[in-house]
Amino acid sequence: MDMKPIISLTTDFGNQDGFVGVMKGVIWGIAPDAHIADITHDIPAQNIRLGAYALWRVVPFFPPGSVHIAVIDPGVGTQRRPIGLKIGDQHFIVPDNGLITPIVEAGERAGKNIEMVHLNNPAYWLENVSHTFHGRDIFAPTGAHLAAGIPLINLGDRIDDIIRIEFSRPIKRDYGWEAHITIIDVFGNLTTDLPAEAVRDNSEIQFRLGDNLIKGIVPSYGHRSEGALIALVDSENYIEIGAVNGSAAKITGARIGDKVEVLLNE
Amino acid sequence: MDMKPIISLTTDFGNQDGFVGVMKGVIWGIAPDAHIADITHDIPAQNIRLGAYALWRVVPFFPPGSVHIAVIDPGVGTQRRPIGLKIGDQHFIVPDNGLITPIVEAGERAGKNIEMVHLNNPAYWLENVSHTFHGRDIFAPTGAHLAAGIPLINLGDRIDDIIRIEFSRPIKRDYGWEAHITIIDVFGNLTTDLPAEAVRDNSEIQFRLGDNLIKGIVPSYGHRSEGALIALVDSENYIEIGAVNGSAAKITGARIGDKVEVLLNE
Amino acid sequence: MDMKPIISLTTDFGNQDGFVGVMKGVIWGIAPDAHIADITHDIPAQNIRLGAYALWRVVPFFPPGSVHIAVIDPGVGTQRRPIGLKIGDQHFIVPDNGLITPIVEAGERAGKNIEMVHLNNPAYWLENVSHTFHGRDIFAPTGAHLAAGIPLINLGDRIDDIIRIEFSRPIKRDYGWEAHITIIDVFGNLTTDLPAEAVRDNSEIQFRLGDNLIKGIVPSYGHRSEGALIALVDSENYIEIGAVNGSAAKITGARIGDKVEVLLNE
Repeated sequence: MDMKPIISLTTDFGNQDGFVGVMKGVIWGIAPDAHIADITHDIPAQNIRLGAYALWRVVPFFPPGSVHIAVIDPGVGTQRRPIGLKIGDQHFIVPDNGLITPIVEAGERAGKNIEMVHLNNPAYWLENVSHTFHGRDIFAPTGAHLAAGIPLINLGDRIDDIIRIEFSRPIKRDYGWEAHITIIDVFGNLTTDLPAEAVRDNSEIQFRLGDNLIKGIVPSYGHRSEGALIALVDSENYIEIGAVNGSAAKITGARIGDKVEVLLNE
Repeated sequence: MDMKPIISLTTDFGNQDGFVGVMKGVIWGIAPDAHIADITHDIPAQNIRLGAYALWRVVPFFPPGSVHIAVIDPGVGTQRRPIGLKIGDQHFIVPDNGLITPIVEAGERAGKNIEMVHLNNPAYWLENVSHTFHGRDIFAPTGAHLAAGIPLINLGDRIDDIIRIEFSRPIKRDYGWEAHITIIDVFGNLTTDLPAEAVRDNSEIQFRLGDNLIKGIVPSYGHRSEGALIALVDSENYIEIGAVNGSAAKITGARIGDKVEVLLNE
Repeated sequence: MDMKPIISLTTDFGNQDGFVGVMKGVIWGIAPDAHIADITHDIPAQNIRLGAYALWRVVPFFPPGSVHIAVIDPGVGTQRRPIGLKIGDQHFIVPDNGLITPIVEAGERAGKNIEMVHLNNPAYWLENVSHTFHGRDIFAPTGAHLAAGIPLINLGDRIDDIIRIEFSRPIKRDYGWEAHITIIDVFGNLTTDLPAEAVRDNSEIQFRLGDNLIKGIVPSYGHRSEGALIALVDSENYIEIGAVNGSAAKITGARIGDKVEVLLNE
């Protein structure tokens, strides 16, 4: 069994209008063997930051050679560049608007090899490119050509600068850390920007979120009584505030960007 | 690399109940090599017209030989016929209720070869056919047999008449065109029934939608200030009313069927 | 054409966060040939019962050898066991919390061979297992290994007891049957727990649901006037209350668990 090319799709297109389905038609016309995994198409419209988090969380679990196409693209039809990247053994096709920032920074921290290309070779686009749907006309076909074996460098000119945007980071405080909510998932779990290793060995730890004070870190959702707020290490090794068989988002009313005070009492 | 059969699915089944997933199980039991692309399953219940638009928009981007199964089927279990069509190099499996009208008419305008069959050969259905779920019991298996190489004509008797329904068309007026909103997408963009080529060369053009007057056609969403209403050419070459980083549907309160006056001032 | 492995996915993960997409990345890293069918990811959070119904309805339509991964898993990270089952020619990977009960009971009634294994062999898990996302770290990889040909027994120790939960059943009454609503689908159809064969030959049958009295069983939705409540046999051969081109759920306000009195007047 040899590996088939794998393409992932992350967009803010929703699933109602056929925008994603038509990209699959384009992809299979070029890379007929490709598997296509939908990551999410429910990123709130034009929310580059949430799209970036969604993609960043899944990439480490994809096989070598996967091609990730992500299109959250408020600047479609303007001068913003479509770009292609190879970061370690994964490929990316994205608009140059910061969507790829967390993955590039993680790759840099890990010392991975990074190549970047401006996708300006129209030989790998659809023949007629609309001004409003580059997902179909540029991103899908270039990603499919990459998956079918075309080298990244053929797709356009090499570049060494891309747009980066700031993502929230925890701030060291007298009391410990000021962390921030970065993602609220469908269960109402509140992921923060605090890596678990920053606090892993502290047994006196408390978390303050609005009026709520949460003591200690539990191993998983099943370790407190129904409805209790808990702190735990999420599946990407960040500190998360959850609720046992409930929604921490509903209980706390918290929103993305809200502060979580991590009290270390050292 | 040879082409694999591609099947697209367009329904009003939603994604919560497993109706689509079970169709895939049926399809892969018959056509184990097939790729399956979901176009949309979020067509409002029994809205044949919106399903027709969704399918019509994506078909031109699918590879030759693709099979499109579309099931918006208020008449399931009655005398309405299941039909199969070959239009140019694309196949279709649909209920005979007008869902295929825009694609047939586009095929006729383009002079494509069109074959039509009443899918009345039970050898290509599931063994036990329910009265309420022909998507699973008739449409999925006949579409899968087609994708697996069975000729259309084997699936039933040739027919030359199908049900057609009227879709909105722009009306020529003294002031220019009376266009109508046909689709509202997830971003709140308002597609109209006016083909861009009808107005492409007019530089004095204005669009009136309710109380809103929009001047000129811009190339894409990024070409006006945030929140501004704009007119542009959509990705299928129809006139669309949008908003820069916003929702034209929310700003205008417009609904499907609403009139857009296109003032040509010639 | 030889069969490819087929994997189905049923979860309460939603489609917004990438939880399902990452499972596909994991699966294709292990079983690169596998087709993956999403059954549903919109089961209400932690609703084992609705997840069980969704899976039970689709399984009979999947080809032999299919692997069904279902993750509705409020006990993730606690002592609840991940289990693997072979029931007839279908495989299942689920948490041991009752999710598989209806399928096991149907298999037992049909006299199928049933094998059960505690998935406790970490050789078939991801290398680092989180405490909160066994869907990605245990269920997806073990299911993929099964699809790739690893025998079930290799995945862990054989067991002969699993957790079973009670599902609603119709109750025989003086007047006929007390049935109960088990599923409300996207169209607002109300499936009950009464198998159609229990009442099939009765021509005087009536159904009382709240204040509504419905006479007789019709063959399908198209057999009464618009908006009328009807009783019919659903696509799994259970009695269902529907409405002609409308939503029985909206018309009646019924909820899951509500009583439907089936009056036989014998």
